[in-house]
Amino acid sequence: MMTASSVKLVTIGERLLAGNDEAAARNRRRLDAAGVLAVNVMAAPGAGKTSLIVRTLEALRGRVRIGVIEGDIAGSIDAEKVLAAGAGAAVQINTGGNCHLEANMVDQALNDLDLARLDIVLVENVGNLVCPTHWALGEHRKVTLVGAAEGHDKPFKYPEMFAVSDAIVLNKIDLIELVDFDRAFFYESVRALNPRAPIFEVSCRTGAGVAAWAEWLLAGWSRRDHPQDLGKGG
Amino acid sequence: MMTASSVKLVTIGERLLAGNDEAAARNRRRLDAAGVLAVNVMAAPGAGKTSLIVRTLEALRGRVRIGVIEGDIAGSIDAEKVLAAGAGAAVQINTGGNCHLEANMVDQALNDLDLARLDIVLVENVGNLVCPTHWALGEHRKVTLVGAAEGHDKPFKYPEMFAVSDAIVLNKIDLIELVDFDRAFFYESVRALNPRAPIFEVSCRTGAGVAAWAEWLLAGWSRRDHPQDLGKGG
Repeated sequence: MMTASSVKLVTIGERLLAGNDEAAARNRRRLDAAGVLAVNVMAAPGAGKTSLIVRTLEALRGRVRIGVIEGDIAGSIDAEKVLAAGAGAAVQINTGGNCHLEANMVDQALNDLDLARLDIVLVENVGNLVCPTHWALGEHRKVTLVGAAEGHDKPFKYPEMFAVSDAIVLNKIDLIELVDFDRAFFYESVRALNPRAPIFEVSCRTGAGVAAWAEWLLAGWSRRDHPQDLGKGG
Repeated sequence: MMTASSVKLVTIGERLLAGNDEAAARNRRRLDAAGVLAVNVMAAPGAGKTSLIVRTLEALRGRVRIGVIEGDIAGSIDAEKVLAAGAGAAVQINTGGNCHLEANMVDQALNDLDLARLDIVLVENVGNLVCPTHWALGEHRKVTLVGAAEGHDKPFKYPEMFAVSDAIVLNKIDLIELVDFDRAFFYESVRALNPRAPIFEVSCRTGAGVAAWAEWLLAGWSRRDHPQDLGKGG
Protein backbone atom coordinates (compact mmCIF):
# COMPACT_ATOMS: atom_id res chain seq x y z
CA MET A 1 0.00 0.00 0.00
CA MET A 2 1.26 3.46 -0.85
CA THR A 3 0.16 7.03 -1.09
CA ALA A 4 1.18 9.22 -3.99
CA SER A 5 0.37 12.87 -4.48
CA SER A 6 1.31 15.69 -6.80
CA VAL A 7 2.58 18.67 -4.83
CA LYS A 8 3.05 20.77 -7.95
CA LEU A 9 -0.59 20.42 -8.92
CA VAL A 10 -1.77 21.39 -5.46
CA THR A 11 0.27 24.59 -5.48
CA ILE A 12 -0.99 25.67 -8.88
CA GLY A 13 -4.46 24.59 -7.84
CA GLU A 14 -4.47 26.81 -4.76
CA ARG A 15 -3.67 29.88 -6.82
CA LEU A 16 -6.38 29.12 -9.37
CA LEU A 17 -8.88 28.34 -6.63
CA ALA A 18 -8.30 31.68 -4.91
CA GLY A 19 -9.16 33.53 -8.14
CA ASN A 20 -12.18 31.29 -8.58
CA ASP A 21 -13.41 32.04 -5.05
CA GLU A 22 -13.38 35.77 -5.85
CA ALA A 23 -15.40 35.23 -9.01
CA ALA A 24 -17.79 33.01 -7.05
CA ALA A 25 -18.30 35.75 -4.45
CA ARG A 26 -19.19 38.17 -7.27
CA ASN A 27 -21.71 35.68 -8.68
CA ARG A 28 -23.21 35.27 -5.21
CA ARG A 29 -23.69 39.00 -4.75
CA ARG A 30 -25.34 39.21 -8.15
CA LEU A 31 -27.68 36.32 -7.38
CA ASP A 32 -28.49 37.76 -3.95
CA ALA A 33 -29.25 41.16 -5.42
CA ALA A 34 -31.73 39.50 -7.77
CA GLY A 35 -33.18 37.31 -5.03
CA VAL A 36 -32.34 34.16 -6.91
CA LEU A 37 -31.44 30.91 -5.15
CA ALA A 38 -28.65 29.07 -7.02
CA VAL A 39 -28.14 25.34 -6.60
CA ASN A 40 -25.06 23.46 -7.79
CA VAL A 41 -26.09 19.94 -8.83
CA MET A 42 -23.08 17.62 -8.81
CA ALA A 43 -22.88 13.93 -9.69
CA ALA A 44 -20.99 11.26 -11.59
CA PRO A 45 -21.79 10.86 -15.29
CA GLY A 46 -25.10 9.11 -15.77
CA ALA A 47 -26.42 9.59 -12.23
CA GLY A 48 -29.43 11.44 -13.63
CA LYS A 49 -28.68 15.15 -13.16
CA THR A 50 -30.65 16.27 -16.20
CA SER A 51 -33.50 13.89 -15.36
CA LEU A 52 -33.67 15.30 -11.81
CA ILE A 53 -33.80 18.84 -13.20
CA VAL A 54 -36.57 17.87 -15.63
CA ARG A 55 -38.57 16.24 -12.80
CA THR A 56 -38.01 19.29 -10.59
CA LEU A 57 -39.29 21.61 -13.32
CA GLU A 58 -42.42 19.45 -13.59
CA ALA A 59 -42.91 19.33 -9.81
CA LEU A 60 -42.59 23.09 -9.32
CA ARG A 61 -44.35 24.25 -12.48
CA GLY A 62 -46.43 27.34 -11.80
CA ARG A 63 -45.01 27.78 -8.29
CA VAL A 64 -41.57 29.17 -8.97
CA ARG A 65 -39.62 30.30 -12.04
CA ILE A 66 -36.55 28.15 -12.68
CA GLY A 67 -33.58 28.84 -14.93
CA VAL A 68 -31.02 26.19 -15.75
CA ILE A 69 -27.30 26.40 -16.48
CA GLU A 70 -26.11 23.20 -18.14
CA GLY A 71 -22.42 22.37 -17.86
CA ASP A 72 -21.13 19.77 -20.28
CA ILE A 73 -17.90 18.78 -21.94
CA ALA A 74 -19.70 18.94 -25.28
CA GLY A 75 -23.16 19.23 -26.79
CA SER A 76 -26.31 21.18 -26.03
CA ILE A 77 -28.96 18.47 -25.78
CA ASP A 78 -29.43 19.03 -22.04
CA ALA A 79 -30.33 22.71 -22.46
CA GLU A 80 -32.84 21.71 -25.15
CA LYS A 81 -34.31 19.04 -22.83
CA VAL A 82 -34.84 21.37 -19.88
CA LEU A 83 -36.36 24.09 -22.06
CA ALA A 84 -38.79 21.52 -23.42
CA ALA A 85 -39.60 20.56 -19.80
CA GLY A 86 -40.55 24.12 -18.90
CA ALA A 87 -37.39 25.89 -17.76
CA GLY A 88 -37.88 29.66 -17.78
CA ALA A 89 -34.48 29.96 -19.45
CA ALA A 90 -31.51 27.71 -20.14
CA VAL A 91 -27.88 28.34 -20.95
CA GLN A 92 -25.48 25.68 -22.08
CA ILE A 93 -21.82 25.92 -21.09
CA ASN A 94 -19.42 23.76 -23.03
CA THR A 95 -16.34 23.47 -20.86
CA GLY A 96 -14.08 22.48 -23.75
CA GLY A 97 -12.71 19.43 -21.98
CA ASN A 98 -12.64 20.98 -18.51
CA CYS A 99 -13.86 18.48 -15.92
CA HIS A 100 -15.83 20.92 -13.78
CA LEU A 101 -17.57 24.28 -13.97
CA GLU A 102 -15.74 27.33 -12.69
CA ALA A 103 -17.14 30.58 -11.36
CA ASN A 104 -16.11 32.62 -14.41
CA MET A 105 -18.06 30.25 -16.67
CA VAL A 106 -21.15 30.73 -14.51
CA ASP A 107 -20.55 34.50 -14.58
CA GLN A 108 -20.77 34.41 -18.37
CA ALA A 109 -23.85 32.20 -18.25
CA LEU A 110 -25.56 34.60 -15.84
CA ASN A 111 -25.11 37.33 -18.46
CA ASP A 112 -27.42 35.32 -20.68
CA LEU A 113 -30.12 34.83 -18.02
CA ASP A 114 -32.65 37.52 -17.09
CA LEU A 115 -32.37 37.07 -13.32
CA ALA A 116 -35.26 39.48 -12.66
CA ARG A 117 -37.54 36.87 -14.23
CA LEU A 118 -36.21 33.90 -12.23
CA ASP A 119 -36.48 32.60 -8.65
CA ILE A 120 -34.17 29.60 -8.74
CA VAL A 121 -31.20 28.76 -10.95
CA LEU A 122 -30.24 25.09 -11.11
CA VAL A 123 -26.65 24.65 -12.24
CA GLU A 124 -25.88 21.21 -13.66
CA ASN A 125 -22.18 20.65 -13.17
CA VAL A 126 -20.03 18.42 -15.40
CA GLY A 127 -20.48 14.74 -14.56
CA ASN A 128 -17.67 14.15 -12.08
CA LEU A 129 -17.61 13.09 -8.40
CA VAL A 130 -14.23 14.69 -7.69
CA CYS A 131 -13.31 17.95 -9.38
CA PRO A 132 -16.45 20.08 -8.94
CA THR A 133 -16.05 19.83 -5.14
CA HIS A 134 -13.32 22.44 -5.03
CA TRP A 135 -14.76 25.02 -7.40
CA ALA A 136 -17.29 27.36 -5.81
CA LEU A 137 -19.68 28.86 -8.35
CA GLY A 138 -21.45 31.35 -6.09
CA GLU A 139 -24.21 28.85 -5.33
CA HIS A 140 -26.34 28.89 -2.16
CA ARG A 141 -26.70 25.11 -2.07
CA LYS A 142 -24.56 22.19 -3.19
CA VAL A 143 -26.37 18.95 -3.95
CA THR A 144 -24.80 15.57 -4.66
CA LEU A 145 -26.85 13.15 -6.73
CA VAL A 146 -25.91 9.48 -6.87
CA GLY A 147 -27.60 6.62 -8.70
CA ALA A 148 -28.31 3.38 -6.84
CA ALA A 149 -26.70 1.44 -9.69
CA GLU A 150 -23.39 3.17 -8.91
CA GLY A 151 -23.25 1.20 -5.66
CA HIS A 152 -23.63 1.92 -1.96
CA ASP A 153 -19.90 2.56 -1.56
CA LYS A 154 -19.76 5.89 -3.42
CA PRO A 155 -19.70 8.09 -0.26
CA PHE A 156 -16.86 5.94 1.03
CA LYS A 157 -14.90 6.22 -2.25
CA TYR A 158 -15.59 9.91 -3.04
CA PRO A 159 -15.97 11.38 0.43
CA GLU A 160 -15.40 15.09 -0.19
CA MET A 161 -18.39 15.74 -2.40
CA PHE A 162 -20.75 14.09 0.07
CA ALA A 163 -19.13 16.00 2.93
CA VAL A 164 -19.61 19.45 1.41
CA SER A 165 -23.19 18.96 0.18
CA ASP A 166 -26.33 20.52 1.65
CA ALA A 167 -28.47 17.66 0.39
CA ILE A 168 -27.91 14.18 -1.03
CA VAL A 169 -30.26 12.75 -3.64
CA LEU A 170 -30.21 8.97 -4.12
CA ASN A 171 -31.67 8.38 -7.58
CA LYS A 172 -32.76 5.19 -9.40
CA ILE A 173 -34.33 3.64 -6.29
CA ASP A 174 -36.47 1.60 -8.70
CA LEU A 175 -33.27 -0.41 -9.33
CA ILE A 176 -32.25 -0.72 -5.69
CA GLU A 177 -33.30 -4.37 -5.24
CA LEU A 178 -31.59 -5.37 -8.50
CA VAL A 179 -28.12 -4.04 -7.79
CA ASP A 180 -27.37 -5.36 -4.27
CA PHE A 181 -27.46 -1.83 -2.90
CA ASP A 182 -26.81 -1.87 0.86
CA ARG A 183 -28.95 1.01 2.14
CA ALA A 184 -27.61 0.80 5.71
CA PHE A 185 -24.01 1.03 4.48
CA PHE A 186 -24.89 4.00 2.28
CA TYR A 187 -26.68 5.92 5.04
CA GLU A 188 -23.94 5.21 7.57
CA SER A 189 -21.25 6.35 5.14
CA VAL A 190 -23.10 9.57 4.34
CA ARG A 191 -23.82 10.26 8.01
CA ALA A 192 -20.17 9.74 8.95
CA LEU A 193 -19.20 12.44 6.44
CA ASN A 194 -22.18 14.73 6.75
CA PRO A 195 -24.44 14.45 9.78
CA ARG A 196 -26.99 17.08 8.73
CA ALA A 197 -27.73 17.00 5.01
CA PRO A 198 -31.13 15.52 4.18
CA ILE A 199 -31.06 12.40 1.99
CA PHE A 200 -33.84 12.18 -0.62
CA GLU A 201 -34.57 8.85 -2.27
CA VAL A 202 -36.04 9.37 -5.72
CA SER A 203 -36.63 7.66 -9.03
CA CYS A 204 -36.48 10.15 -11.85
CA ARG A 205 -37.77 7.34 -14.06
CA THR A 206 -41.03 6.84 -12.12
CA GLY A 207 -41.17 10.21 -10.34
CA ALA A 208 -41.19 8.58 -6.89
CA GLY A 209 -39.83 10.81 -4.13
CA VAL A 210 -39.35 13.85 -6.34
CA ALA A 211 -42.01 15.90 -4.50
CA ALA A 212 -40.12 15.84 -1.17
CA TRP A 213 -36.91 16.96 -2.87
CA ALA A 214 -38.75 19.74 -4.72
CA GLU A 215 -40.31 20.97 -1.46
CA TRP A 216 -36.88 21.16 0.14
CA LEU A 217 -35.66 23.24 -2.78
CA LEU A 218 -38.69 25.51 -2.56
CA ALA A 219 -38.20 25.92 1.21
CA GLY A 220 -34.61 27.00 0.56
CA TRP A 221 -35.89 29.63 -1.84
CA SER A 222 -38.61 30.84 0.57
CA ARG A 223 -36.15 31.16 3.44
CA ARG A 224 -33.58 33.20 1.54
CA ASP A 225 -32.80 36.37 3.42
CA HIS A 226 -32.95 38.95 0.67
CA PRO A 227 -35.82 41.31 1.50
CA GLN A 228 -35.96 42.72 -2.01
CA ASP A 229 -37.03 39.31 -3.31
CA LEU A 230 -39.93 38.57 -1.11
CA GLY A 231 -42.48 40.48 -3.13
CA LYS A 232 -41.15 39.57 -6.54
CA GLY A 233 -44.02 37.22 -7.38
CA GLY A 234 -44.58 35.23 -10.56
CA MET B 1 -25.79 28.97 -25.91
CA MET B 2 -22.21 29.87 -25.14
CA THR B 3 -18.77 28.36 -24.91
CA ALA B 4 -16.45 29.13 -22.02
CA SER B 5 -12.94 27.90 -21.49
CA SER B 6 -10.01 28.48 -19.16
CA VAL B 7 -6.92 29.36 -21.15
CA LYS B 8 -4.73 29.55 -18.05
CA LEU B 9 -5.55 25.98 -17.07
CA VAL B 10 -4.76 24.69 -20.55
CA THR B 11 -1.32 26.32 -20.55
CA ILE B 12 -0.38 24.94 -17.16
CA GLY B 13 -1.88 21.62 -18.17
CA GLU B 14 0.28 21.34 -21.25
CA ARG B 15 3.45 21.76 -19.22
CA LEU B 16 2.39 19.18 -16.63
CA LEU B 17 1.29 16.78 -19.34
CA ALA B 18 4.68 16.94 -21.10
CA GLY B 19 6.41 15.86 -17.86
CA ASN B 20 3.81 13.16 -17.41
CA ASP B 21 4.38 11.82 -20.93
CA GLU B 22 8.10 11.40 -20.17
CA ALA B 23 7.33 9.46 -17.00
CA ALA B 24 4.81 7.37 -18.93
CA ALA B 25 7.44 6.51 -21.54
CA ARG B 26 9.76 5.33 -18.74
CA ASN B 27 6.97 3.16 -17.30
CA ARG B 28 6.34 1.71 -20.74
CA ARG B 29 10.00 0.76 -21.24
CA ARG B 30 10.04 -0.89 -17.82
CA LEU B 31 6.85 -2.86 -18.56
CA ASP B 32 8.16 -3.85 -22.00
CA ALA B 33 11.47 -5.03 -20.54
CA ALA B 34 9.54 -7.28 -18.16
CA GLY B 35 7.15 -8.47 -20.87
CA VAL B 36 4.15 -7.22 -18.98
CA LEU B 37 1.01 -5.92 -20.72
CA ALA B 38 -0.44 -2.93 -18.86
CA VAL B 39 -4.09 -1.96 -19.26
CA ASN B 40 -5.56 1.34 -18.08
CA VAL B 41 -9.17 0.75 -17.00
CA MET B 42 -11.12 4.03 -17.04
CA ALA B 43 -14.75 4.68 -16.14
CA ALA B 44 -17.15 6.89 -14.23
CA PRO B 45 -17.62 6.17 -10.51
CA GLY B 46 -19.75 3.10 -9.99
CA ALA B 47 -19.46 1.73 -13.53
CA GLY B 48 -17.99 -1.50 -12.14
CA LYS B 49 -14.23 -1.21 -12.63
CA THR B 50 -13.33 -3.28 -9.59
CA SER B 51 -16.06 -5.83 -10.40
CA LEU B 52 -14.70 -6.18 -13.95
CA ILE B 53 -11.19 -6.74 -12.59
CA VAL B 54 -12.48 -9.36 -10.14
CA ARG B 55 -14.37 -11.16 -12.94
CA THR B 56 -11.28 -10.97 -15.17
CA LEU B 57 -9.12 -12.53 -12.45
CA GLU B 58 -11.64 -15.36 -12.14
CA ALA B 59 -11.87 -15.86 -15.92
CA LEU B 60 -8.09 -15.99 -16.43
CA ARG B 61 -7.13 -17.88 -13.28
CA GLY B 62 -4.32 -20.34 -13.98
CA ARG B 63 -3.75 -19.00 -17.48
CA VAL B 64 -1.95 -15.76 -16.83
CA ARG B 65 -0.56 -13.92 -13.79
CA ILE B 66 -2.28 -10.62 -13.15
CA GLY B 67 -1.21 -7.76 -10.90
CA VAL B 68 -3.52 -4.87 -10.09
CA ILE B 69 -2.85 -1.21 -9.38
CA GLU B 70 -5.86 0.37 -7.71
CA GLY B 71 -6.23 4.13 -7.98
CA ASP B 72 -8.64 5.75 -5.55
CA ILE B 73 -9.21 9.10 -3.92
CA ALA B 74 -9.24 7.31 -0.57
CA GLY B 75 -9.38 3.84 0.96
CA SER B 76 -7.82 0.47 0.21
CA ILE B 77 -10.84 -1.83 0.00
CA ASP B 78 -10.38 -2.38 -3.74
CA ALA B 79 -6.84 -3.72 -3.34
CA GLU B 80 -8.12 -6.07 -0.64
CA LYS B 81 -10.97 -7.22 -2.93
CA VAL B 82 -8.76 -8.04 -5.90
CA LEU B 83 -6.22 -9.88 -3.73
CA ALA B 84 -9.06 -11.98 -2.35
CA ALA B 85 -10.14 -12.66 -5.94
CA GLY B 86 -6.73 -14.05 -6.87
CA ALA B 87 -4.60 -11.15 -8.05
CA GLY B 88 -0.91 -12.10 -8.06
CA ALA B 89 -0.17 -8.75 -6.39
CA ALA B 90 -2.05 -5.53 -5.71
CA VAL B 91 -0.95 -2.00 -4.93
CA GLN B 92 -3.29 0.73 -3.78
CA ILE B 93 -2.61 4.32 -4.79
CA ASN B 94 -4.46 6.97 -2.85
CA THR B 95 -4.39 10.06 -5.04
CA GLY B 96 -5.09 12.43 -2.15
CA GLY B 97 -7.94 14.17 -3.92
CA ASN B 98 -6.42 14.02 -7.39
CA CYS B 99 -9.07 13.11 -9.96
CA HIS B 100 -6.91 10.83 -12.11
CA LEU B 101 -3.79 8.70 -11.95
CA GLU B 102 -0.52 10.14 -13.25
CA ALA B 103 2.52 8.34 -14.60
CA ASN B 104 4.69 9.14 -11.56
CA MET B 105 2.12 7.49 -9.28
CA VAL B 106 2.19 4.36 -11.43
CA ASP B 107 6.00 4.49 -11.39
CA GLN B 108 5.91 4.30 -7.60
CA ALA B 109 3.33 1.52 -7.67
CA LEU B 110 5.49 -0.49 -10.11
CA ASN B 111 8.27 -0.38 -7.51
CA ASP B 112 6.01 -2.44 -5.25
CA LEU B 113 5.18 -5.06 -7.90
CA ASP B 114 7.52 -7.90 -8.84
CA LEU B 115 7.08 -7.59 -12.61
CA ALA B 116 9.11 -10.75 -13.26
CA ARG B 117 6.24 -12.68 -11.67
CA LEU B 118 3.46 -11.01 -13.64
CA ASP B 119 2.10 -11.12 -17.21
CA ILE B 120 -0.59 -8.45 -17.12
CA VAL B 121 -1.04 -5.40 -14.91
CA LEU B 122 -4.56 -3.98 -14.74
CA VAL B 123 -4.54 -0.36 -13.63
CA GLU B 124 -7.87 0.82 -12.19
CA ASN B 125 -7.96 4.57 -12.69
CA VAL B 126 -9.88 6.99 -10.46
CA GLY B 127 -13.61 6.99 -11.27
CA ASN B 128 -13.87 9.83 -13.77
CA LEU B 129 -14.92 10.00 -17.44
CA VAL B 130 -12.93 13.15 -18.18
CA CYS B 131 -9.57 13.69 -16.52
CA PRO B 132 -7.85 10.30 -16.96
CA THR B 133 -8.07 10.72 -20.76
CA HIS B 134 -5.14 13.10 -20.91
CA TRP B 135 -2.74 11.38 -18.55
CA ALA B 136 -0.75 8.57 -20.14
CA LEU B 137 0.46 6.01 -17.60
CA GLY B 138 2.71 3.92 -19.85
CA GLU B 139 -0.13 1.50 -20.58
CA HIS B 140 -0.39 -0.63 -23.72
CA ARG B 141 -4.18 -0.53 -23.80
CA LYS B 142 -6.80 1.96 -22.67
CA VAL B 143 -10.23 0.56 -21.89
CA THR B 144 -13.39 2.55 -21.17
CA LEU B 145 -16.03 0.83 -19.08
CA VAL B 146 -19.55 2.21 -18.91
CA GLY B 147 -22.60 0.89 -17.05
CA ALA B 148 -25.90 0.58 -18.90
CA ALA B 149 -27.62 2.44 -16.02
CA GLU B 150 -25.49 5.50 -16.85
CA GLY B 151 -27.44 5.85 -20.09
CA HIS B 152 -26.80 5.37 -23.78
CA ASP B 153 -25.71 9.01 -24.21
CA LYS B 154 -22.38 8.74 -22.39
CA PRO B 155 -20.21 8.52 -25.55
CA PHE B 156 -21.99 11.61 -26.84
CA LYS B 157 -21.45 13.51 -23.58
CA TYR B 158 -17.88 12.39 -22.80
CA PRO B 159 -16.49 11.80 -26.28
CA GLU B 160 -12.74 11.93 -25.68
CA MET B 161 -12.44 8.88 -23.46
CA PHE B 162 -14.40 6.75 -25.91
CA ALA B 163 -12.32 8.11 -28.81
CA VAL B 164 -8.94 7.19 -27.29
CA SER B 165 -9.86 3.71 -26.03
CA ASP B 166 -8.70 0.40 -27.49
CA ALA B 167 -11.81 -1.37 -26.21
CA ILE B 168 -15.18 -0.36 -24.77
CA VAL B 169 -16.88 -2.51 -22.13
CA LEU B 170 -20.61 -2.01 -21.63
CA ASN B 171 -21.36 -3.37 -18.16
CA LYS B 172 -24.65 -4.06 -16.31
CA ILE B 173 -26.39 -5.42 -19.40
CA ASP B 174 -28.66 -7.29 -16.96
CA LEU B 175 -30.27 -3.86 -16.35
CA ILE B 176 -30.47 -2.84 -19.99
CA GLU B 177 -34.21 -3.43 -20.41
CA LEU B 178 -35.00 -1.60 -17.16
CA VAL B 179 -33.23 1.68 -17.91
CA ASP B 180 -34.48 2.55 -21.41
CA PHE B 181 -30.99 2.04 -22.81
CA ASP B 182 -30.97 2.68 -26.56
CA ARG B 183 -28.40 0.18 -27.86
CA ALA B 184 -28.45 1.53 -31.43
CA PHE B 185 -27.80 5.08 -30.22
CA PHE B 186 -24.93 3.86 -28.03
CA TYR B 187 -23.27 1.83 -30.78
CA GLU B 188 -23.65 4.61 -33.33
CA SER B 189 -22.16 7.16 -30.93
CA VAL B 190 -19.19 4.95 -30.14
CA ARG B 191 -18.62 4.13 -33.80
CA ALA B 192 -18.69 7.81 -34.76
CA LEU B 193 -15.88 8.46 -32.27
CA ASN B 194 -13.98 5.22 -32.58
CA PRO B 195 -14.56 3.00 -35.60
CA ARG B 196 -12.27 0.15 -34.56
CA ALA B 197 -12.41 -0.58 -30.82
CA PRO B 198 -14.29 -3.76 -29.97
CA ILE B 199 -17.36 -3.30 -27.75
CA PHE B 200 -17.90 -6.02 -25.14
CA GLU B 201 -21.28 -6.34 -23.46
CA VAL B 202 -20.92 -7.85 -20.00
CA SER B 203 -22.67 -8.18 -16.68
CA CYS B 204 -20.16 -8.33 -13.87
CA ARG B 205 -23.09 -9.24 -11.62
CA THR B 206 -24.00 -12.41 -13.53
CA GLY B 207 -20.69 -13.00 -15.33
CA ALA B 208 -22.33 -12.82 -18.77
CA GLY B 209 -19.97 -11.78 -21.56
CA VAL B 210 -16.87 -11.67 -19.38
CA ALA B 211 -15.20 -14.56 -21.21
CA ALA B 212 -15.03 -12.70 -24.55
CA TRP B 213 -13.52 -9.64 -22.88
CA ALA B 214 -10.98 -11.79 -21.03
CA GLU B 215 -9.97 -13.51 -24.28
CA TRP B 216 -9.36 -10.13 -25.91
CA LEU B 217 -7.12 -9.18 -23.02
CA LEU B 218 -5.27 -12.46 -23.23
CA ALA B 219 -4.82 -12.05 -26.99
CA GLY B 220 -3.28 -8.63 -26.37
CA TRP B 221 -0.83 -10.19 -23.99
CA SER B 222 0.02 -13.07 -26.37
CA ARG B 223 0.58 -10.70 -29.28
CA ARG B 224 2.94 -8.40 -27.45
CA ASP B 225 6.12 -7.99 -29.43
CA HIS B 226 8.77 -8.38 -26.74
CA PRO B 227 10.75 -11.54 -27.58
CA GLN B 228 12.23 -11.81 -24.10
CA ASP B 229 8.74 -12.48 -22.70
CA LEU B 230 7.60 -15.26 -24.90
CA GLY B 231 9.15 -18.05 -22.91
CA LYS B 232 8.45 -16.66 -19.48
CA GLY B 233 5.68 -19.13 -18.67
CA GLY B 234 3.60 -19.42 -15.50
